[in-house]
Amino acid sequence: MRVAVFAGDGIGSEVTAEAVRVLEALDLLKLELVYGDVGGVAYRKHGHPLPAETLEIARSCGAVLFGAVGDFSCDHLERHLRPEQAILGLRKELGLFANLRPATVFKGLEDLTTLRPEVAEKIDLLIVRELNGDVYFGEKGIRTLDDGRRQGWDMMSYAEDEVRRIAHTGFKAAMGRRRKLCSVDKANVLETSQLWRDVVIEVAKEYPEVELSHMYVDNAAMQLVKNPGQFDVIVTGNLFGDILSDQASMCVGSIGLLASASLAEGTFGLYEPIHGSAPDIAGKGLANPMATILSAAMLLRHSYGLEVQAARIEAAVGRALADGIRGGDLGGQAGTKEIGDAVLARL
Amino acid sequence: MRVAVFAGDGIGSEVTAEAVRVLEALDLLKLELVYGDVGGVAYRKHGHPLPAETLEIARSCGAVLFGAVGDFSCDHLERHLRPEQAILGLRKELGLFANLRPATVFKGLEDLTTLRPEVAEKIDLLIVRELNGDVYFGEKGIRTLDDGRRQGWDMMSYAEDEVRRIAHTGFKAAMGRRRKLCSVDKANVLETSQLWRDVVIEVAKEYPEVELSHMYVDNAAMQLVKNPGQFDVIVTGNLFGDILSDQASMCVGSIGLLASASLAEGTFGLYEPIHGSAPDIAGKGLANPMATILSAAMLLRHSYGLEVQAARIEAAVGRALADGIRGGDLGGQAGTKEIGDAVLARL
Ligand SMILES: CC(C)[C@H](C(=O)O)[C@@H](O)C(=O)O
Ligand SMILES: CC(C)[C@H](C(=O)O)[C@@H](O)C(=O)O
Repeated sequence: MRVAVFAGDGIGSEVTAEAVRVLEALDLLKLELVYGDVGGVAYRKHGHPLPAETLEIARSCGAVLFGAVGDFSCDHLERHLRPEQAILGLRKELGLFANLRPATVFKGLEDLTTLRPEVAEKIDLLIVRELNGDVYFGEKGIRTLDDGRRQGWDMMSYAEDEVRRIAHTGFKAAMGRRRKLCSVDKANVLETSQLWRDVVIEVAKEYPEVELSHMYVDNAAMQLVKNPGQFDVIVTGNLFGDILSDQASMCVGSIGLLASASLAEGTFGLYEPIHGSAPDIAGKGLANPMATILSAAMLLRHSYGLEVQAARIEAAVGRALADGIRGGDLGGQAGTKEIGDAVLARL
Repeated sequence: MRVAVFAGDGIGSEVTAEAVRVLEALDLLKLELVYGDVGGVAYRKHGHPLPAETLEIARSCGAVLFGAVGDFSCDHLERHLRPEQAILGLRKELGLFANLRPATVFKGLEDLTTLRPEVAEKIDLLIVRELNGDVYFGEKGIRTLDDGRRQGWDMMSYAEDEVRRIAHTGFKAAMGRRRKLCSVDKANVLETSQLWRDVVIEVAKEYPEVELSHMYVDNAAMQLVKNPGQFDVIVTGNLFGDILSDQASMCVGSIGLLASASLAEGTFGLYEPIHGSAPDIAGKGLANPMATILSAAMLLRHSYGLEVQAARIEAAVGRALADGIRGGDLGGQAGTKEIGDAVLARL
């Protein structure tokens, strides 16, 4: 059981350290942790946000536990050297095509969201976002047109197999939940979306028990405000998924608690908190490590089938919350180590 | 003063009829109304959602009052014949490049939004969305790749003059408000956004009094949930603007009250409620015409400089709301005509 730990920038090292303590406390058979550099930290040490060594390490492991990347001091660098490229590179190089972002309001934390409690408490959705295609990875550039004007351009596209693969992920996820899948696109404007919709409809035939609906992305953004409780699983492309999954996370209020999984075909996956590198509080022992600890639980479940251990971690976090342990992001006082200790004590 | 009235589908004819009654009641000098067909209605009568005659009418007028388009019975048609193409065609053909979408919570209606009242009451923002470029109007298609796979593709792009033009609109709008402009893009992934950002920074030099910030679109979708009161003016591209303006509208709760303007260079503009054609209640006299009446006020202000008359309409709507006149969309009982009467009585 070889797991890569890429802490990254800002609070990344502090929050992954606590998740590692939790993993180690579980007495997993032959757990081996391998550390690698990513993001701004890696750029400064190796001249690249995703050094070849790091990629090698990931390839030699069964899963990656990821902290966060993002570092203002790299803002002046060319795009391909910026910290965010590490995460895009890992997704592409490791074939991490399916991003799972569950959003549920934790019991007792309904008061943290800006939504009315009666709206927020009904949120229990999963966003399945495609991660390897779309306008993220198409050709792109800035060119000078014949008449001398500069133009920025990016090619958006999806091929049928890319859509089929993520559609299956969406339908399977729905089968394990309330069997409702909403596919989000912009088929009234985009041909990419038209193909997306056609393929999702094809794939739906293999999942007759799942109730499939289609929604335009602008309407989805409205419905997530109006009535987020209507959604079970949402499946969508890379760009729309980026926007909607962040919107949905904020509806939950407690962004310091939300974990995510980015899965390849097979069991390999990368697991990370959805919050960023929070440079403002980095190094101060203030970051809430719960989202990273919960990401470690997802890692055990998805990459190693260790459901019991995953559930133990989740229960321990739930108990810590129920006992009033709150990081600064949740309006509390508990520091990084203290929260890690609290979870460990309840394992 | 020649104004085109394009009622369109569903409730379009009912709501524009009330706005027309309000315009006529103002005793405007030489107001001439010219009617034209758009949307599904136009497709059935003329075989096209945006017939050449309709475009001609628009071109002969100083402004267009628009109802809504959208008709399920057209869902099977090829994309270029669907009702929504009427609105895309009008935007492009008439050079309507700037969409202004104000979002403010009306006093006394704070209880209609799903956001907590203390969050909602601070919303007072304007979204300036570019309407003539981006992935909406680039080349697009569905092709078969060499290996036989189908692929949907759409070209996203912005040229510097397109960005410059809408940036000026954004800065000018900010100058007339709280002097804060937030430009939303995805410059960490898209070259289109990188050019967008570069040009916005250039244009900013001409508006030293405006405080400019930049935000990634995923973060903007989060911030609109977390603290929408932080925004004054948001300027963004066509696709991101489509999503964020709908999200912001729903934050306000009372979507039956929100008007919008789509402006060309000079004084020409198209004005429409942001709600859709609502086929479920069409023809029943149930639709709330307030958003269309408020669109008529925007028309007087932006296309004819008739600030006094615009303000009279807005005040009349405000008084009607204060007096408890509520359409079904606001949880009330008042029908279309009754609301029109109520506004007229308070002009
Ligand atoms: C950092 C950025 C490139 C990335 C994305 O847009 O995918 C981030 O927003 C995310 O969602 O993981
Ligand atoms: C109908 C559709 C093409 C249109 C758009 O995406 O621009 C609509 O959503 C809007 O915002 O006016």
